[in-house]
Amino acid sequence: MEKIEQEIKLRGKILPGNVLKVNSFLNHQLDPLFLNEMALEWYKVFKDKNVTKIVTIEASGIALAVLVGLLFKVDVVFAKKSSSFNLSNCYNSKIYSYTKGKYFDILIEKEFLKEGDNVLIIDDFLANGSASLGLIDILNQASCNLVGIGIAIEKGFQEGGNILREKGIQVESLAIIESMDYDKQEITFRK
Amino acid sequence: MEKIEQEIKLRGKILPGNVLKVNSFLNHQLDPLFLNEMALEWYKVFKDKNVTKIVTIEASGIALAVLVGLLFKVDVVFAKKSSSFNLSNCYNSKIYSYTKGKYFDILIEKEFLKEGDNVLIIDDFLANGSASLGLIDILNQASCNLVGIGIAIEKGFQEGGNILREKGIQVESLAIIESMDYDKQEITFRK
Repeated sequence: MEKIEQEIKLRGKILPGNVLKVNSFLNHQLDPLFLNEMALEWYKVFKDKNVTKIVTIEASGIALAVLVGLLFKVDVVFAKKSSSFNLSNCYNSKIYSYTKGKYFDILIEKEFLKEGDNVLIIDDFLANGSASLGLIDILNQASCNLVGIGIAIEKGFQEGGNILREKGIQVESLAIIESMDYDKQEITFRK
Repeated sequence: MEKIEQEIKLRGKILPGNVLKVNSFLNHQLDPLFLNEMALEWYKVFKDKNVTKIVTIEASGIALAVLVGLLFKVDVVFAKKSSSFNLSNCYNSKIYSYTKGKYFDILIEKEFLKEGDNVLIIDDFLANGSASLGLIDILNQASCNLVGIGIAIEKGFQEGGNILREKGIQVESLAIIESMDYDKQEITFRK
């Protein structure tokens, strides 16, 4: 998706440690019209796959996932990152966040994933694949079918995309970054 | 909004300590079509108020806020609940969460709130008003104008609604709970 590449070049900031900050439209401030264009891209790709549920992880995935859910007219479930006394009877998995530098649990209440649900995972970033693998672990526990994964920005120089595609999973990333240069503040996208 | 009262009665669960769990459509699983109907209610109320920005708090407010932002065609900013090394140069305030039982900081990067922005605050719950007051504190720091507050579910038996309305703020709650009875699992709404 050319527009997301343009926006990343225009508004993204490269931080040390291969961190890409896109707070101006995706992770802190949200541009709903642009996010809706992204949602439409995934809708076009997966609309004939009988998607019955959208799954994401709080917090940054929620905005994209709800817009996708609106197009598919299906419910969205976002995995929670910490247990709270409001959660009961959950599937859970453990994922590692390089951004935060720690492991944390993700949880989804069992009643919101039905056996046979056709699930589309939506997330803002794909890097090492830990978040997606954690969600897939939960989907397996719930005997759901994974239809595919829609990612806004994939860091193509990290291993997540390969790991998932080698499993035969359809990963639709709207932008794939081949390399980022902090000193030059330069980003190269995969063609 | 009659439909939200029906959904709360049908799908809400009252937990001890006056906690209302609406995980099936608002706080964990999200029903995008229904959430969009809520967004339309606030749009009708505030559409002539020259709203230039929607502000909310992660995580549960994001889904509602992005749908409202899509209708108003303006950017959404969600306050973050913890600092991360991805945030810099922020307005901040401190709020108390009775659900979590602790104080935490909320932060918004300064570049996303402009002096003179006409801000509509959107949130899922209003109880003691701590979250709204924290956001208002930040809006004041940024010299923004508060247009009003759109709330999905107000706990009318707690003081938040009164505190805000006594300040002259237009608070539009789609459902106001007058009382909840844990033993009987009964909810009474304000007429």
